Amino acid sequence: MAQRPRNAFYAQSGGVTAVINASACGVIETARKHPDRIGKLYAGRNGILGALREDLVDTGKESEAAIRALRHTPAGAFGSARYKLKGLDENRAEYERLIEVFRAHDIGYFFYNGGGDSQDTCHKVSQIGEELAYPVVCVGVPKTIDNDLPFTDCCPGFGSVAKYVATSIREASFDVVSMAETSTKVFVLEVMGRHAGWITAACGLASERPADGPHILLFPEIAFDPEAFLAKVDATVKAYGHCVIGVSEGIRDGAGNFLSDSGVRDAFGHAQLGGVAPLIAGMIKQRLGYKHHWAVADYLQRAARHLASRTDVKQAYAMGKAAVELALRGHNAVMPTIERISDRPYKWKVGMVALADVANRERMMPRDYISADGFHITAKCRRYLAPLIAGEDHPPYRDGLPDYVRLKLSAVKRKLDTDFGK
Amino acid sequence: MAQRPRNAFYAQSGGVTAVINASACGVIETARKHPDRIGKLYAGRNGILGALREDLVDTGKESEAAIRALRHTPAGAFGSARYKLKGLDENRAEYERLIEVFRAHDIGYFFYNGGGDSQDTCHKVSQIGEELAYPVVCVGVPKTIDNDLPFTDCCPGFGSVAKYVATSIREASFDVVSMAETSTKVFVLEVMGRHAGWITAACGLASERPADGPHILLFPEIAFDPEAFLAKVDATVKAYGHCVIGVSEGIRDGAGNFLSDSGVRDAFGHAQLGGVAPLIAGMIKQRLGYKHHWAVADYLQRAARHLASRTDVKQAYAMGKAAVELALRGHNAVMPTIERISDRPYKWKVGMVALADVANRERMMPRDYISADGFHITAKCRRYLAPLIAGEDHPPYRDGLPDYVRLKLSAVKRKLDTDFGK
Repeated sequence: MAQRPRNAFYAQSGGVTAVINASACGVIETARKHPDRIGKLYAGRNGILGALREDLVDTGKESEAAIRALRHTPAGAFGSARYKLKGLDENRAEYERLIEVFRAHDIGYFFYNGGGDSQDTCHKVSQIGEELAYPVVCVGVPKTIDNDLPFTDCCPGFGSVAKYVATSIREASFDVVSMAETSTKVFVLEVMGRHAGWITAACGLASERPADGPHILLFPEIAFDPEAFLAKVDATVKAYGHCVIGVSEGIRDGAGNFLSDSGVRDAFGHAQLGGVAPLIAGMIKQRLGYKHHWAVADYLQRAARHLASRTDVKQAYAMGKAAVELALRGHNAVMPTIERISDRPYKWKVGMVALADVANRERMMPRDYISADGFHITAKCRRYLAPLIAGEDHPPYRDGLPDYVRLKLSAVKRKLDTDFGK
Repeated sequence: MAQRPRNAFYAQSGGVTAVINASACGVIETARKHPDRIGKLYAGRNGILGALREDLVDTGKESEAAIRALRHTPAGAFGSARYKLKGLDENRAEYERLIEVFRAHDIGYFFYNGGGDSQDTCHKVSQIGEELAYPVVCVGVPKTIDNDLPFTDCCPGFGSVAKYVATSIREASFDVVSMAETSTKVFVLEVMGRHAGWITAACGLASERPADGPHILLFPEIAFDPEAFLAKVDATVKAYGHCVIGVSEGIRDGAGNFLSDSGVRDAFGHAQLGGVAPLIAGMIKQRLGYKHHWAVADYLQRAARHLASRTDVKQAYAMGKAAVELALRGHNAVMPTIERISDRPYKWKVGMVALADVANRERMMPRDYISADGFHITAKCRRYLAPLIAGEDHPPYRDGLPDYVRLKLSAVKRKLDTDFGK
């Protein structure tokens, strides 16, 4: 049965990554191969807000070269948004507005590239579409550096952060070894990962022998015990002359409070964290007297496309491509996943999960990925993580710097004379 | 006239860099080519302390492959030291001890790889050698990420930090642009450079248009004016929707005090700085209310061999090689330098300067490298900096991480029965 082509809408959501644009590239390049099924592919300027405000970008105006360059460009080329649609009952108007805009532009496909909150939104859009008898195929594209989506072996974005933090802490460890005799003996690197310690765990890949840094990892899954920690730092300095520590921004004390809660909340109500490294370093200085240095990688870790994992880039692209293909095969309210077939050699394939199942669930580190004393990763964890950082995918350089693309972002002519939220 | 071969001593000093081992590689590989002139090449374990303690490493025990791998390995493979020899009058015993150890091991060449303080030490060793009628050829090998040595166009170590901070702040800027509509509007990256703003200036290479981050740079050369700064931040957010800031750890207020002085002093009596970024970010949050993120790169920036400048690696190697060649040509108490011949195309050659001239002088940024308002770099500055970050020199990777070498560090049998400082 011949179907008339309908337009598609793609949006990026939440914190961006080094490879979310590789997923965008996968969506766009794949959609372009099916002009019989997909007409225009619009992107939301600043994520879902672009749909609510009818602020759409025509990806068709971008050259093939520009779209290809998205594969090696970090962050969200169309703008992302920390904007969570509320429950259907709480704010039905927002969902109806989305459908209004979709209808005005004949959007038949909705591809939403984000984490758990976004998959939930994507699911709700599919529900409201059905309720309002507006046919729209909704497919999520997984993305999160936190690696905390369920049902997928890993999340695009994570592998590159993992490679970045492991490389950085290895390099810093070499530095500290050089300096330890007369100067810095302790180095602390703070990494992201609000609730799940996957990024912290990735730091552990840098140490191949007990003498190698990082010697201590502080996971959000393990309540921070200052005395046990300080004893371990001291023992490490005494054994190896230095101590390198990777700490999650999200570590909590025994009562479950974040060690460093700046008091700021993001749009999803999550605490904005940061600044644990200086706190930990100060504690060491005060109690043990060791000279220290500390670093907070913050956005550097998730934007570091120059050090992306080749595996991660491939998977990010594959998820974008698969989302379009799933939609064209008639799947609705689903998300493509990565299914691991084997660790060594690493093999994986594209799977699929229903959005109803994936929404709003966080996947924590299994306890047996963390060593018995809570301060490092196990061999099992290494086996899981190792393939995710494998391979390099150097971006092109111009004048000594990565040559990232800036899109034209041509606006689509508006069809509605209504403004959203004004 | 045939000269009998004499042994050589090489030591790394001060804060290490991504390419100081490339200089070591240049020294060792070049020395190995002249067995008629240079016998054993010993390295000091933990820098000059290795000489004082008679704790020498026999570089001859390292394989050719291991030495070659130094070229792509960051930090100080033999251990560095923050240990400043005092004045000749103040602590003559230390200098005499050096000569005692040199004499015991027939050290006829002293190659000292460091910054201004170390060049001063190298000079004094040449003086004491003469005084004590012990013939030793002393040649400095320039190294400092701060780029503050005089007489050389740039310092090995700087170009790679420059490439790292420019790349990182470009990547973070792409991230912030994506997030700014609903979330982070201001991003602050703190970089090293205690007194000279060269590293801060290098951040500026990332912005090619006024809209590109970084929009504001805070140099140690320019007294920090909170009101002018906050006005500039606000204007930038209003113009571009976001603002990215690069700040030196060494910025000072109008009275000349470091904004963030932790109170700790290093062995040279310099203040140990750090933590300006959260301070600046907090000020913005409090006064302007913008959501912010901040990062402190700390050791990550100077250890980041994975992102080294090819120009820097070449120059670091060339300085090591030149040091040996100058010594063999009979020069004493000198340091090889980098002399720029032209900007575009970039051409340079090896020059030479007397240690008496280079010692203990810091080269500040020329005022005309900083824009009139004090918040960015000029075209002249770009012309100077651009070639220094040119080219990539990716290290080999193993299992997804840079494959850096760890040397055997075989100890040389001691010949003295005296201990130093015990």
